[in-house]
Amino acid sequence: MVPGHEIAGEVTEVGSKVRKVKVGDKVGVGCMVGACHSCESCANDLENYCPKVIPTYTSINTDGTITYGGYSDQMVANERYIVRFPDSMPLDAAAPLLCAGITVYSPLKYFELAEHGKHVGIVGLGGLGHVAVKFAKAFGAKVTVISTSPSKKTEALEHLGADSFLNSRDPDQLQGAMGTLDGIIDTVSAVHPILPFVGLLKSQGKLVLVGVPNKPLELPVISLIMGRKTVSGSSIGGMKETQEMIDFAAKHNITADIEVISMDYVNTAMERLAKADVRYRFVIDIANTLAATKP
Amino acid sequence: MVPGHEIAGEVTEVGSKVRKVKVGDKVGVGCMVGACHSCESCANDLENYCPKVIPTYTSINTDGTITYGGYSDQMVANERYIVRFPDSMPLDAAAPLLCAGITVYSPLKYFELAEHGKHVGIVGLGGLGHVAVKFAKAFGAKVTVISTSPSKKTEALEHLGADSFLNSRDPDQLQGAMGTLDGIIDTVSAVHPILPFVGLLKSQGKLVLVGVPNKPLELPVISLIMGRKTVSGSSIGGMKETQEMIDFAAKHNITADIEVISMDYVNTAMERLAKADVRYRFVIDIANTLAATKP
Repeated sequence: MVPGHEIAGEVTEVGSKVRKVKVGDKVGVGCMVGACHSCESCANDLENYCPKVIPTYTSINTDGTITYGGYSDQMVANERYIVRFPDSMPLDAAAPLLCAGITVYSPLKYFELAEHGKHVGIVGLGGLGHVAVKFAKAFGAKVTVISTSPSKKTEALEHLGADSFLNSRDPDQLQGAMGTLDGIIDTVSAVHPILPFVGLLKSQGKLVLVGVPNKPLELPVISLIMGRKTVSGSSIGGMKETQEMIDFAAKHNITADIEVISMDYVNTAMERLAKADVRYRFVIDIANTLAATKP
Repeated sequence: MVPGHEIAGEVTEVGSKVRKVKVGDKVGVGCMVGACHSCESCANDLENYCPKVIPTYTSINTDGTITYGGYSDQMVANERYIVRFPDSMPLDAAAPLLCAGITVYSPLKYFELAEHGKHVGIVGLGGLGHVAVKFAKAFGAKVTVISTSPSKKTEALEHLGADSFLNSRDPDQLQGAMGTLDGIIDTVSAVHPILPFVGLLKSQGKLVLVGVPNKPLELPVISLIMGRKTVSGSSIGGMKETQEMIDFAAKHNITADIEVISMDYVNTAMERLAKADVRYRFVIDIANTLAATKP
């Protein structure tokens, strides 16, 4: 397996029928490189929900070859799965938007939380959560960061611009905020209770899960029923919306906070990642460091 | 505790400021008899989601008295919580609509399933489920009844007019219907797996729980994420919508299928109810039988 699905670079060659990009353009490839293009999801620009979507790595492409991810100094991709970066965007800090960014942007829009005056909770302040705060603020929402780490309060409020912070291990803080949120984007991948978050929602509030725990979570049915509340899942976004997200990010100066590393640092980065020791995304500088690792 | 929250009768007296009904009108009272009338839910005609909603029985009314339910030959209620029955509606068969009816009508509307051409699943064919089938059909939806009892197939298709039937204990039937439903109203109160139902939904499909299991259910997060699917709860409906539901039911000749019993049959009815031995609602003829039980 060769991972990597937040890939940014420059176009070096285009096919004769390619209209979307030209040599020299700054572009990116995200989580998928193909889909069926004939189902209802594809027809609605939701290739991400196509049953035959082709992930950027560890999948079989339409030509029968295995898809390898972004740990490479070149890549061939169908133009439909290419995102154009405005010239103003730094490739390294923009790259994580291709997964982390669209994963939170899409549900903010779809679940009608990307609106001025909405009060939005962001659970978990990691790769996804920190860009979720930036997008939600740019949409004009009031943003509350919810985390088990009280040490992240200063970061959330002062660096990322959140409006408030809730320590989800503090029952008093949770109690004081019951019924105040229009929606929550929950980015946590670990198995965790969602009952407290459902309680934070107003009636008709929406909890959106974008992290994938390895076991089912407990669904507090009564709490949903008593406030017509909703728990949903959301997975990245279609290519049209991914481009829209990048254009919106460029307009609002949104990028990920990153630590650029060289290729030979990958194993160390993986170990640090397992300890959540990164603010907030590692980006590998393939162009300048991959060659040095070749035998 | 005196239960009963699907109450139908005739107005015998009105206060001087009452404008909504007059003596002799056919009326009903459902699950609630009061609320705060100052919160956001009340302002939006959603008294059912008011944090201070006053249930029709086993609650404390605004005057400090205990609310008793419908096992009575007279009742005093605030006009806001009175529903008018069109003259054409039989009081006995219409009464269950005041809880069972609105409990399924409201989510069909709110979750945009009450639309021509939508494909809706109804899980469980009991008091709620059988009226859900009738409402969904009246809205023009294609209706699939989903039940653990294959014996209910004939009833569902021939008597209630459902379009198809799925035995939820038959993996082949479930597999064959994967990804076909726009939404599901799940009326089951027992603890049960919802993964199969999430699987039956199309992308963006909505599973709405209206039954209250006594334990949390297992939430299959990955299945939600892979199709941007939603699990929600819903509880009855506001008074405005309850009136709308009754008017719609009258127009489309929708009532509950009932078995009318006398007051002294109540204990037997409770025993039969515990065995799900009723098609589909018991209705007590209070007016003609309560007096006989008095010492």
